[in-house]
Amino acid sequence: MNPATQRFSVRTSRREEYVDITDSVRSAVRAAGVTDGICTVFIPHTTAAVTINENADPDVQRDLVHAFARAVPNTGFHHSEGNSDAHTKTAMTGSSAVVIVEGGQLLLGTWQGIYLCEFDGPRTRQVWVKAVG
Amino acid sequence: MNPATQRFSVRTSRREEYVDITDSVRSAVRAAGVTDGICTVFIPHTTAAVTINENADPDVQRDLVHAFARAVPNTGFHHSEGNSDAHTKTAMTGSSAVVIVEGGQLLLGTWQGIYLCEFDGPRTRQVWVKAVG
Amino acid sequence: MNPATQRFSVRTSRREEYVDITDSVRSAVRAAGVTDGICTVFIPHTTAAVTINENADPDVQRDLVHAFARAVPNTGFHHSEGNSDAHTKTAMTGSSAVVIVEGGQLLLGTWQGIYLCEFDGPRTRQVWVKAVG
Repeated sequence: MNPATQRFSVRTSRREEYVDITDSVRSAVRAAGVTDGICTVFIPHTTAAVTINENADPDVQRDLVHAFARAVPNTGFHHSEGNSDAHTKTAMTGSSAVVIVEGGQLLLGTWQGIYLCEFDGPRTRQVWVKAVG
Repeated sequence: MNPATQRFSVRTSRREEYVDITDSVRSAVRAAGVTDGICTVFIPHTTAAVTINENADPDVQRDLVHAFARAVPNTGFHHSEGNSDAHTKTAMTGSSAVVIVEGGQLLLGTWQGIYLCEFDGPRTRQVWVKAVG
Repeated sequence: MNPATQRFSVRTSRREEYVDITDSVRSAVRAAGVTDGICTVFIPHTTAAVTINENADPDVQRDLVHAFARAVPNTGFHHSEGNSDAHTKTAMTGSSAVVIVEGGQLLLGTWQGIYLCEFDGPRTRQVWVKAVG
């Protein structure tokens, strides 16, 4: 077992989008060498988050962007950077996802993928992965 | 200590409801045999989630359904299955809950219960539980 | 390594506010003596939550209060205590945060702080911290 935190980066291309990072998380878990336990995927930013959602129809990710924009309109805020909608969406979505590891593999449902949620891009984002047994 | 992931299923009865799964999670933690550590409750679906909320007045769960429906109206979406509101509520609520285990018991606040959140039922849903020490 | 759950309390001063608890969580992790692993910050209440968000401009926390109040207006509810907005915000934000521990230190991004989210104060709130290696 390798106690180091696994790290990789993701380049986003729009202000708001969902980027599938499932394969990169799988590789990180293999590198960690944990057979049975849990894996934490952590996003060290305050205007990007991580979620687990449908990996089949890309319209779902497009609809998530629409629904969050409607729930959190970017008006009436004080923060001078003009991105308080992104901070709020991050608080609603969460900075970490926890997935079970069994037999060295991520245990996900059939339709689940792990997504970096970009709320204030395009930027280069970091993803940290830590598995414990 | 039993390294296997504990699994159980829940039959929901409406499109949207909160089902108390606290007792089943307690049993899963006992079966895992972990004395001190943390327990992850994971929902392997993309239109159902897990939350920790009030276990006393059932009106709270009814109000949660109302509040999430108002924040995420099911209109203006592209996904052909017509359930993008459910995908969004899942992203807002989360696919996992993490609870501390102490002395072999779940450590919860007085008024806290663990709930499966059904956002697109009725269906049979799976719940996976993994405790690590 | 100390298997006990670390606990501390926070006195809030308004109905809704975000209180930076990063330093207290750091102390709890040091007391736990875990060098490499993950740390769970758990809030044992149903009208308060925990989030990780910007630690620089206090306007961000003020904007979070505004954005959540707009997404979850406190009207149309049945729960007799009159705080179903707070229960909903707790479900949206989450009762736990998971942070990676490396070299005995919390691994956070440059602009990240850990916040207790008070949604129905002022009250005295408990925070439980458990690190596992």
